[in-house]
Amino acid sequence: MNKNDRVGLEGVFIEKDLPLLIRREGIADWCDGVVRILDRRALPHDERHIDCESVEDVARCIENMVIQGAFSLSVAAGYGLALAVSDKAESDCRTQLTIASERLKKTRPTGLAISRMMVACLAAAEHALAEGNSPRDAILATVERGAVALSRQAYEVGRIACEILPDDATILTHCFPDRPYAYMLVEARRIGKPLKVIVSETRPYLQGARLTSLCAMQTGFDVHVITDGMGGFLMRRGEIDAFVTAADRVCMDGTVCNKIGTYQHALAAKTNGLPYYVLRQSGPDIESAGESSVEVEFRDGEEIVNVGGTRIAPSDVKGLYPAFDITPPDLVSKIITDRGAFPASEIASYVDATPFITDAVV
Amino acid sequence: MNKNDRVGLEGVFIEKDLPLLIRREGIADWCDGVVRILDRRALPHDERHIDCESVEDVARCIENMVIQGAFSLSVAAGYGLALAVSDKAESDCRTQLTIASERLKKTRPTGLAISRMMVACLAAAEHALAEGNSPRDAILATVERGAVALSRQAYEVGRIACEILPDDATILTHCFPDRPYAYMLVEARRIGKPLKVIVSETRPYLQGARLTSLCAMQTGFDVHVITDGMGGFLMRRGEIDAFVTAADRVCMDGTVCNKIGTYQHALAAKTNGLPYYVLRQSGPDIESAGESSVEVEFRDGEEIVNVGGTRIAPSDVKGLYPAFDITPPDLVSKIITDRGAFPASEIASYVDATPFITDAVV
Repeated sequence: MNKNDRVGLEGVFIEKDLPLLIRREGIADWCDGVVRILDRRALPHDERHIDCESVEDVARCIENMVIQGAFSLSVAAGYGLALAVSDKAESDCRTQLTIASERLKKTRPTGLAISRMMVACLAAAEHALAEGNSPRDAILATVERGAVALSRQAYEVGRIACEILPDDATILTHCFPDRPYAYMLVEARRIGKPLKVIVSETRPYLQGARLTSLCAMQTGFDVHVITDGMGGFLMRRGEIDAFVTAADRVCMDGTVCNKIGTYQHALAAKTNGLPYYVLRQSGPDIESAGESSVEVEFRDGEEIVNVGGTRIAPSDVKGLYPAFDITPPDLVSKIITDRGAFPASEIASYVDATPFITDAVV
Repeated sequence: MNKNDRVGLEGVFIEKDLPLLIRREGIADWCDGVVRILDRRALPHDERHIDCESVEDVARCIENMVIQGAFSLSVAAGYGLALAVSDKAESDCRTQLTIASERLKKTRPTGLAISRMMVACLAAAEHALAEGNSPRDAILATVERGAVALSRQAYEVGRIACEILPDDATILTHCFPDRPYAYMLVEARRIGKPLKVIVSETRPYLQGARLTSLCAMQTGFDVHVITDGMGGFLMRRGEIDAFVTAADRVCMDGTVCNKIGTYQHALAAKTNGLPYYVLRQSGPDIESAGESSVEVEFRDGEEIVNVGGTRIAPSDVKGLYPAFDITPPDLVSKIITDRGAFPASEIASYVDATPFITDAVV
């Protein structure tokens, strides 16, 4: 059987029927000691990959936005960690693993996907070393199990979100909300629920225009791109029924940290009586009580004043680039997780809810 | 005396000390039967002009965003109308004038600057014809008088706005709010009031990144560019003190129609307790009672999905492009006109307030 024909997610979907960006293969793969990463910066026009031969190569790919999203980042970082050790059980590799995991975690200080994968992989490597087994093999096996679990969780989130959305809904999305969103669309397609998709382009990296639109198009829905300043107006005109995003982090009080531009849309949704659904498969971060515990990453302002290699502002003018923003819980209707949909103010109860996957590694 | 040294606005400013975009010359000039228009699309990097030899040339420049802003549009359109007639008093030129003025008014259905200039110029041409004088000379003289009056009004608006802003204020602006805004900055510089300027880039045409930033930089203030999705977050963080824009139209009930993206910022300003000041030198449109009387122009969606000649979205994905949005009066703190600053709900009283210029032609 060709790997593209294989049936994933307990027989619900066939790999090749899924949009490119939520397939298992082709995003971040382990290829005989090399981590091969799909370069999303070249999408939607080119499908090209970058081969990483070291931890530093992988770290730079993550920092340079070659790859994005909780699933893809954790898989790439997990494979990156495997590059730090050989397949032999050498006790001095603990230092390399520590250094490598710190380097990889530092690439994205705001989200938690990478650090969760690091914790799982380090534990597996430690266990292997104690048993005299290959730490690299243990890490690779952890990444595989983690990837399967993350996909199943993502589909569950997408399934619940699809159930919640009204028929014929027009959905506005900001940035690329990754697998849960894509599964929401493929599930809607599978059960014959018609949706219309509007994506805000998401400056400066244009993930909405390039990635979300590609994903939505590949599920066969009608899709339109708008700029990041248009959503509120379309909501006021009654042309949008729901705002749906992912979250880079959810705090225990329901505060949502997501790609810059989310807050303005969430505010407009609330003001215009529309629901805002946050897709967050792994629930809240138990170490983040609320807004004050989130450090928002500021990136280089040059990334704002240059578009496609061309400077858009006068040469003496600087850019200012907060990469994420904060949406307070009162603007969030539901946070949809693998353990169900929670009102934002009750998201802390996720922690004690029944796990969707009881043996998940990440 | 070199024309660049001449003292404008009753001796307050010297032409060459003003930012490029609010000088009298170099924006739209009548040059021996040709209308020479500064091509703003090439700013901030190139200062190039387009020579228009027909009404249609001028109309296309306006439609293609070569020129923008109430002052510049009305001057360019006025000169454009002059191209429709010779300098002789031929009675059959009335038809040409009607056709030309209709063509020019149609270039921007949302704003009123062009149609006000058309009314003034047609009246002047009619008067000239009745007296056996050159209609073209009458139109040119009307444009000159109009330009002086518009500049004086713009400065008065900027002066009042500068007075209202707190010292050390950081001001967020969307799009290019033209002369009143630029005069606000040069007045602040003149009286030694320190300001910091943040401009949202204003996709898709990037007027904020290209024009407003240039203007602010040329007045010597510290200026940063952000994307259209960042303003709300910076407001939440307390890094902005006021939101200031122009308006393409103000209704009698205080509803503001301005460049798409304004509404989301205005909403964030209100939510975060910040004032939103609208600079609108010519007051409300007496024929627009409120939101329902404003037809918002939708432009070609291709302008959204292509940036600098490069397609940013997959080839089958369409763009959606409302060019303006609507901000309801309750989000507007003051509408600042040449007749003073009005609470939005009282802007209708502009009509009966004492004119700043009693013999204004437009």
